[in-house]
Amino acid sequence: MAQLYFRVGLGTRPARFEHSFRAYPDYGTHQAGYVIAAGLAPFVDWMHGASFDDDAADALRSLRSGTGDAIFGDDFLDWMREQGGFGDVSLWSVPEGRVVHRNTPIAVVEAPLAVAQLLESSLLNHLNYAALIATKASRVVEAAHGGSVLEFGLRRAHGFGGNGATRAALIGGADFSSNVGVSHELGIPSKGTHGHSMVQVFMAIAGGEIEAFRAYADVYPDDCLLLVDTINTLESGVPNAIRVFEELKSRGHRPVGIRLDSGDLAYLAVRSAAMLNAAGFADTSIVLSSQLDELTIWQIRNQILEEAPRYGLDVDQMLSRLVYGVGSRMVTSDGDPSFDGVYKAVAVENEAGDWEPAIKISDSPDKLALPGAKSLWRVYDERGIATADVIGLEGEDIERRPLEVLHPTRPGVGRVLGADRVSSIEPLLEPVVSRGRVVAELGSIEVARSRRTADLARLDTGVRRLVNPHTYHVSVTRPLLELKQSLIEAHSRD
Amino acid sequence: MAQLYFRVGLGTRPARFEHSFRAYPDYGTHQAGYVIAAGLAPFVDWMHGASFDDDAADALRSLRSGTGDAIFGDDFLDWMREQGGFGDVSLWSVPEGRVVHRNTPIAVVEAPLAVAQLLESSLLNHLNYAALIATKASRVVEAAHGGSVLEFGLRRAHGFGGNGATRAALIGGADFSSNVGVSHELGIPSKGTHGHSMVQVFMAIAGGEIEAFRAYADVYPDDCLLLVDTINTLESGVPNAIRVFEELKSRGHRPVGIRLDSGDLAYLAVRSAAMLNAAGFADTSIVLSSQLDELTIWQIRNQILEEAPRYGLDVDQMLSRLVYGVGSRMVTSDGDPSFDGVYKAVAVENEAGDWEPAIKISDSPDKLALPGAKSLWRVYDERGIATADVIGLEGEDIERRPLEVLHPTRPGVGRVLGADRVSSIEPLLEPVVSRGRVVAELGSIEVARSRRTADLARLDTGVRRLVNPHTYHVSVTRPLLELKQSLIEAHSRD
Repeated sequence: MAQLYFRVGLGTRPARFEHSFRAYPDYGTHQAGYVIAAGLAPFVDWMHGASFDDDAADALRSLRSGTGDAIFGDDFLDWMREQGGFGDVSLWSVPEGRVVHRNTPIAVVEAPLAVAQLLESSLLNHLNYAALIATKASRVVEAAHGGSVLEFGLRRAHGFGGNGATRAALIGGADFSSNVGVSHELGIPSKGTHGHSMVQVFMAIAGGEIEAFRAYADVYPDDCLLLVDTINTLESGVPNAIRVFEELKSRGHRPVGIRLDSGDLAYLAVRSAAMLNAAGFADTSIVLSSQLDELTIWQIRNQILEEAPRYGLDVDQMLSRLVYGVGSRMVTSDGDPSFDGVYKAVAVENEAGDWEPAIKISDSPDKLALPGAKSLWRVYDERGIATADVIGLEGEDIERRPLEVLHPTRPGVGRVLGADRVSSIEPLLEPVVSRGRVVAELGSIEVARSRRTADLARLDTGVRRLVNPHTYHVSVTRPLLELKQSLIEAHSRD
Repeated sequence: MAQLYFRVGLGTRPARFEHSFRAYPDYGTHQAGYVIAAGLAPFVDWMHGASFDDDAADALRSLRSGTGDAIFGDDFLDWMREQGGFGDVSLWSVPEGRVVHRNTPIAVVEAPLAVAQLLESSLLNHLNYAALIATKASRVVEAAHGGSVLEFGLRRAHGFGGNGATRAALIGGADFSSNVGVSHELGIPSKGTHGHSMVQVFMAIAGGEIEAFRAYADVYPDDCLLLVDTINTLESGVPNAIRVFEELKSRGHRPVGIRLDSGDLAYLAVRSAAMLNAAGFADTSIVLSSQLDELTIWQIRNQILEEAPRYGLDVDQMLSRLVYGVGSRMVTSDGDPSFDGVYKAVAVENEAGDWEPAIKISDSPDKLALPGAKSLWRVYDERGIATADVIGLEGEDIERRPLEVLHPTRPGVGRVLGADRVSSIEPLLEPVVSRGRVVAELGSIEVARSRRTADLARLDTGVRRLVNPHTYHVSVTRPLLELKQSLIEAHSRD
């Protein structure tokens, strides 16, 4: 496509592309009602490092047509070498960590047409996956109700995508990760526990489980968290852990806790807690792992609510000591492992230097994109709760009251918001890159995390529901709707 | 764990770890009955490039315990620096592209205990994901029944994992990929098509769909494959494509075909084929894309079987012109996006220099691993069809007849195979790395693809079934079963 634009004289023509998604993740038995934006800083880093060099030109030069001719001409490859990279790109985006909604422009690229087109695969690859995992993590963290969440997914993450998953999960609210490398780069301590193999090794040649636990306590007296299910959790693991905890305590150390990784986690957590409490270790943590996701965490907490009192346990104390080690199902977004974000041309400059809106109509109505250079706002109601995201044409007056907002696809459906119904209106897209120069502060995980927390506090609890969430309003302005309809009519007459 | 082994004097003790998986991918509505091994060459490359350098030591040195003390001591970090990397590792594996089965050792590591332990995350990260995608691709290719399969997934793959997905999909049988970079590295031409944005741009400022198609035909006269659903497939896209194909033909070129990316793909393919045939373009391809996987391809082919005759089309000719562009659902293994491969200690050398078997018992019986240094064989029946994978102790005589093979968990269940029932027995694990030196030919996609083809031809069609496949036999020898039972009894008495 880039070569074609170059050949027809449109290679450097300014164009706008938008990143948006059509559907919230649907995990089958549960569904997301919102998405957490993520991946922006790594994408901008990639864009800065990428260049069209001689190796790239040679690789393309070697590609052959069906007839054996070169697909790419030297004229085009030379021109690409002159372009060099993405120095002419401007980018606006909703910042990382913020709540975003379907069918809204969450990132906007303005660049020479050929350059904007070349960005497509990398932009989608970076932003789609990160948003998918940040969203999943956010749901896991909501299900944990304040319990710590550790990201444990590297072993089953999708190759080197696992590093991006760690960063996205931390933005989505996970407290720590066992990924030592990425945690170090991000300045967040990594947290993990030992595995079964350590106990197995001691069982094979150096005693048994108790000797393994004792060795661990000797090496890590102040970080002693023991995996108790290698033989039998209640018969062997917990009693052995308690013996070692008593030895640690007598030497003046405070044991950290135990980890359960198999069996009925809720039942074993309650039984283990009762045993730990009876031995005077009520302040130890109980880390749960093994195929956890938001739904299993929800079920485990509910089961504990019922079972804990039967063993004389205080429910609040019991729940507050739980830590969730969440791996495969979070970093692969189990149930819906791909985010359907798309990158579509929405406007191209005409010869007069004005934006000409672009549209795709297609045979699937849900694949229809909104045309034109646009803006995105969030409207907060009188309670300060987000009531709608509104898409309009760039330069439209959003301050007028009453504000009319319309359904993007259902004719005649809309709302009129009076001044009493609107506490504030916030533009969501922020400038990130201006003609190749980064103009936003990017990359802080802490800042992204606090954006998420603030946005969730202003989001209807119905929209945050883990199963069958309430549908958040995404509306358009009348001028945008009229533009879309006139373009559909014009192209239907072609 | 590595520091602990070092501190208790076991850091350099030889140990064996095995990679195996417990369950075939289950996509919910359909299930895999086999897995395709993949990821070995990239893993070995990674292992060779990885080293424990000063930066790594400094990163670990900065990690703090709960009390603020350093978690890792200088003694251990200095020792790790001396180890340097993975130069003492030996590795055996089932080669890439081969069919493998659950609960069998598909890769075996022998290395100093601390080093073998450090490999865990990277080995699992490399091998789990690649096997998952090679398996999914193999199923997609089987569903396509000889139709070309193009891997289109980078936009929604999991970050940089998308590159590994491309390689794994090619091993699994995909013909080509749109991932230009990885295709180039692997020496396989990349294949793709244009997107909607190209048509949208022409609609906005340079005419319309026909002008876009004409420009594409001018630039790529011998590779002209047109995406026909930007406005309306049957009313606009296909008629415009046919006009441009006629112009190409009059200039002596042969048009390649069309791509359908929305709507009812089977119906639109049949209607488009009828229009193309009527215009004299029966030899053009029809590329289908949009959320394809093995099940949708199966359904599309079945629908075409019914619908094609109604439009006077030859069914075989119709099916043979189809090409499948498969993206998100293949590279994310939609339905089951994580492969449950594990890496478990199975034996450690004792002070006498003999292997001492290691076992994990756990509270979930399906998580029980087979102990000891083991071998893996495949038994072919009198028809040359694989009838069982058999796991035994290293050094066992597998040539004895009759051969008794036992169910690994159900007591008393087994089979006795006479000489007339066994045509051959093949060892599956091959030496790959011997004390750091690569001793196998790795990396050829073509060789891996031909291994897959040969193995599938020798696999029961019931096991290859896309839905509810027949269960393949995985058996153990009596000496291995007795070792496992004696260890369980010994540790239950602890």
